[in-house]
Amino acid sequence: MKISELGQFGLIDAVAKLVESARDDRADSWKNLVIGIGDDCAVWRGDTTNQLGKVDSQVQGVHFDLDTISWEELGWKSLAVELSDVAAMGGRPSYALVSLGLPDSSQVEDVLSFYRGMLSLAAKTGTAIVGGHISASSIVYINVFVVGRTGRSNDILLTRSSAQAGDKIAVTGHLGTAAAGLEMLTRKLKFDARTSRVLRQAFVHPCPRLTEGLALVENGVKNGMDISDGLLSDLKHICRSSGVGAIVESDLIPLCPEAKRAFGERAIGFALSGGEDYELLFTAGDEVIRRVKDSISCQVTIVGEVVSDHIGEVVLVDREGKSIKPGRTGWDHFRV
Amino acid sequence: MKISELGQFGLIDAVAKLVESARDDRADSWKNLVIGIGDDCAVWRGDTTNQLGKVDSQVQGVHFDLDTISWEELGWKSLAVELSDVAAMGGRPSYALVSLGLPDSSQVEDVLSFYRGMLSLAAKTGTAIVGGHISASSIVYINVFVVGRTGRSNDILLTRSSAQAGDKIAVTGHLGTAAAGLEMLTRKLKFDARTSRVLRQAFVHPCPRLTEGLALVENGVKNGMDISDGLLSDLKHICRSSGVGAIVESDLIPLCPEAKRAFGERAIGFALSGGEDYELLFTAGDEVIRRVKDSISCQVTIVGEVVSDHIGEVVLVDREGKSIKPGRTGWDHFRV
Repeated sequence: MKISELGQFGLIDAVAKLVESARDDRADSWKNLVIGIGDDCAVWRGDTTNQLGKVDSQVQGVHFDLDTISWEELGWKSLAVELSDVAAMGGRPSYALVSLGLPDSSQVEDVLSFYRGMLSLAAKTGTAIVGGHISASSIVYINVFVVGRTGRSNDILLTRSSAQAGDKIAVTGHLGTAAAGLEMLTRKLKFDARTSRVLRQAFVHPCPRLTEGLALVENGVKNGMDISDGLLSDLKHICRSSGVGAIVESDLIPLCPEAKRAFGERAIGFALSGGEDYELLFTAGDEVIRRVKDSISCQVTIVGEVVSDHIGEVVLVDREGKSIKPGRTGWDHFRV
Repeated sequence: MKISELGQFGLIDAVAKLVESARDDRADSWKNLVIGIGDDCAVWRGDTTNQLGKVDSQVQGVHFDLDTISWEELGWKSLAVELSDVAAMGGRPSYALVSLGLPDSSQVEDVLSFYRGMLSLAAKTGTAIVGGHISASSIVYINVFVVGRTGRSNDILLTRSSAQAGDKIAVTGHLGTAAAGLEMLTRKLKFDARTSRVLRQAFVHPCPRLTEGLALVENGVKNGMDISDGLLSDLKHICRSSGVGAIVESDLIPLCPEAKRAFGERAIGFALSGGEDYELLFTAGDEVIRRVKDSISCQVTIVGEVVSDHIGEVVLVDREGKSIKPGRTGWDHFRV
């Protein structure tokens, strides 16, 4: 069977099962493993802290196009998406290793610009770039591996699998702005200067919510992830991992004014199904969410509730609680 | 300037300088860094052990060709080359994360075969595969990230930078067998069954010298690396990092009988400049090397000596000490 028939998630499931069947708890590495495949990061017990490991990749023509993002921005973003996964575990980043595939015709100055962008985010977040690999390749690809840490206790972690019926569903910041930015860049749409800047920055220059991730675990949130594929798709991961369902009220979803101004009704589609916002999505009781709101400066919005029925599914409703069928938004990821 | 003009090593040097200029010793991550870019692995202080991190990549059409290696063998080898770097630091592997780029038309069964090959080596070496990423891509690429550990002390490490004039230069096993195997596979050469099997296995199924790497550090070896690009090229890395020169006696280089039988005089060229043997190359005093020989079962051969002149260079000599200019062997890496 071809991968295109099984789908990416199906393939990952098959691989995860195969790897799990090879688990050997006599080996120290497996014994110390807290979380393997299936969450934002892998987690294993270090000596006094839990260690986090994560890899992600960006492929030219699939994840980025050098017409819409500069090399320096690509460097920033390639690290940002990884650090977002560390934030999504309530962790702190430590080290990054970078593997690049580059055509021979690539410009050295472009590669150095890429690193400058990455180093500027690394410096802001205390991440040391400590190694990597550069390989010849017919297309540009970027693989960033990040190692991080959390507190010692297994409780001091944001997992995808601990949502409980009755929890409120909350998100940081605005959703859909990055997808609006991508739409603007891809279709070469013109807006006023401020709108253009806000939308573009959201897409090319995401800021991983590291401070916020730490604040979540410190305030008792147990369940969370980052939004990389869009609210509906990512919330569905939480529902499946936790064995719960979710109801999201469309009108509550926080949109940025520039995306609304530029795209009107379409902005909600970007928020629901647009990727790459790298905001945090989490669930917790009202009291915990109130504490979180008090402790961080960015906007935190309750968008729905975890329920015990329609397990593994996300139901979108309007203000009256009537179910909404999401329309086509131009995002393949919409098939949640 | 194009990468092809500057060369891969030139580009890596430029990136390493840029990264080093961003070093910030106020950050814990940088403070705890023992070795950054430039050795077989990055090393940072954990709580009771040093931690190792390494990434390497295999790109279709550059590092492998699915005509000469099966998916299962590719899985084994992709992990083996990483574990070889852990061995080359005197470390033990703990965790691996795997990032694959795959065309949509790839067969799911092939991907699972790839993982089976990788898991079989992982199980032998106590390595847990704990995460990864699968991305659409027009070519197959494989990036494996390995985390390992060594003893607590910074001394319990094999670095590239601690060779001293007067040290003997030694290698484990035979050299050139993998390159002979690649030549056989690429040119579809026919040999007797045993020769074909030995040469093919050396290329598709390298065994990382983890036990031997541990034995080296336990017996007091401080300086070593693995041979991935060929003896001359890799020894040159040690010479540059340590600020020494090296004299290698061509006749001492250990060749495997099958490579000699199949390729005659060319076998020495494969040994000098053929890559992918994944044997260990190390330097130490006579007494230390004697202890190493007593403690490990694989062959250890002294092939030359570290000297204080022609720093950064490797001089190849014959039995009488006369310098040999290496001829063209078909390996790009020969430009040491």
